[in-house]
Amino acid sequence: MKKTQSSHSFLLLFITTTFFFTSSMAASSPKKTPLTPCKKLDLYFHDILYDGHNAANATSVIVASPVAGSSSSGTRTSLSPNFHFGDMIIFDDPVTLDKNIRSKPVGRAQGSYIFDAKSTYSVWLGFAFVLNSTDYKGSITFAGAEPVTLKTRDVPVVGGTGDFFMHRGIATTTDEVVDGHLCVGVHVKFYECY
Amino acid sequence: MKKTQSSHSFLLLFITTTFFFTSSMAASSPKKTPLTPCKKLDLYFHDILYDGHNAANATSVIVASPVAGSSSSGTRTSLSPNFHFGDMIIFDDPVTLDKNIRSKPVGRAQGSYIFDAKSTYSVWLGFAFVLNSTDYKGSITFAGAEPVTLKTRDVPVVGGTGDFFMHRGIATTTDEVVDGHLCVGVHVKFYECY
Amino acid sequence: MKKTQSSHSFLLLFITTTFFFTSSMAASSPKKTPLTPCKKLDLYFHDILYDGHNAANATSVIVASPVAGSSSSGTRTSLSPNFHFGDMIIFDDPVTLDKNIRSKPVGRAQGSYIFDAKSTYSVWLGFAFVLNSTDYKGSITFAGAEPVTLKTRDVPVVGGTGDFFMHRGIATTTDEVVDGHLCVGVHVKFYECY
Repeated sequence: MKKTQSSHSFLLLFITTTFFFTSSMAASSPKKTPLTPCKKLDLYFHDILYDGHNAANATSVIVASPVAGSSSSGTRTSLSPNFHFGDMIIFDDPVTLDKNIRSKPVGRAQGSYIFDAKSTYSVWLGFAFVLNSTDYKGSITFAGAEPVTLKTRDVPVVGGTGDFFMHRGIATTTDEVVDGHLCVGVHVKFYECY
Repeated sequence: MKKTQSSHSFLLLFITTTFFFTSSMAASSPKKTPLTPCKKLDLYFHDILYDGHNAANATSVIVASPVAGSSSSGTRTSLSPNFHFGDMIIFDDPVTLDKNIRSKPVGRAQGSYIFDAKSTYSVWLGFAFVLNSTDYKGSITFAGAEPVTLKTRDVPVVGGTGDFFMHRGIATTTDEVVDGHLCVGVHVKFYECY
Repeated sequence: MKKTQSSHSFLLLFITTTFFFTSSMAASSPKKTPLTPCKKLDLYFHDILYDGHNAANATSVIVASPVAGSSSSGTRTSLSPNFHFGDMIIFDDPVTLDKNIRSKPVGRAQGSYIFDAKSTYSVWLGFAFVLNSTDYKGSITFAGAEPVTLKTRDVPVVGGTGDFFMHRGIATTTDEVVDGHLCVGVHVKFYECY
């Protein structure tokens, strides 16, 4: 029985360790870095800023800036000098599966970005993917800093609905000029799914 | 001892399985869809947009739009044409337990919404419930798309403080015109409580 | 063997309980209030609002307000009356380890705040710490109500990147006028780390 007893002791120790390890993780949530996302998503959206002459094609518009208004028409058609600091743009951009703006859209990227750096180009992003395709239906909320001078940057994904119910993750974004317009690549890795 | 040994082996397998199952859940967090919210909340807020003649009663105001300014008074008193695309509204709306704006308020809904669709009515919501009632004290942060043409829509709830410390969930919202003003029903289901 | 068997039964019960306890916590996530943050951060940022005469030193600027524009220069140089209700400010503020604006910056606080109360001073905060120091590299997203008349207030921390990958928590903020400018203390307690 000696061997069996010691085997029991080992088991008990093992179980107890397991118990406290898992329960303490659940309680105070000091999670370990996950190596594997529970879901991935690679999408592109296409932004064409209104410049006073492209009303039909434009997908975004300047709505606020440090200068309150001009005495002429008053339409906002150009970004501010000095890294566009203080400009706010609202957008309704088509989302596609590749970099071609003429590809079948799978949804819209809707929200705003604001230029919030005085000595470089950087924006705050607050927007959602509103997806309505065969593969995905639901919305994804992005909120955070996007230092656009970096080749790639990480933006927090803080919530979602529908197929993305309660999801959280990180979006790695890239910028590219394609066919004369801004094409933003959004590569989402979700680490909390439901 | 044979039986005991095999029993041990089974136990060990079971424990090991348990261990890896639970620890992998904690690590990569592929959570299962929860069927039961850990908390629910049903509230209403009341929005009266400033139109130039209702300063005393108005609870919200247009602060940005695609057109920078007018040559006259310059006060923003009407929404833009074309689905109000590009308009931003800041609000400080009373929150009540029912649809009656004259009911005792339990807090305020404070923040902004922006019209971010070119070919339909849709908004981005960034606001908080700041509650101060007998039942609830604390704030709840909402952030995401609200396609207002849908009868009901889901908006992510991404954080909270006080009684809603660290909470997350989904708010289902509805619109109704009650007594001449916009009454928004907010039905929150929290799936992460603390 | 009797004793061993009952020991097995106890073990099995214990393991089974452990299993269901941990798995149910992961599934519906009714977490217990954590007593101990998994990470803490104490930082300060410094805000100097542009007033028309301080372009070199100013770190923030009014970009939207209830009044669309003035007929003169049109530059936004003063906050609105009535608790600044409807004003939006975009900022790019230095972040330091203490209250001295001349201390070595460890990053920037970038984003916006809007005054969203009609009968008191209160703001909605949407901004990020973008940190780049020896100790911390990464961003932290803040989103929520900040009732600035309170001595301290809690603001949800809803996401992060880099060293703050997927983090969530609560920031307790304070205001102080130091050397003639606004110094905001941000005391973050993270309750979800990775």
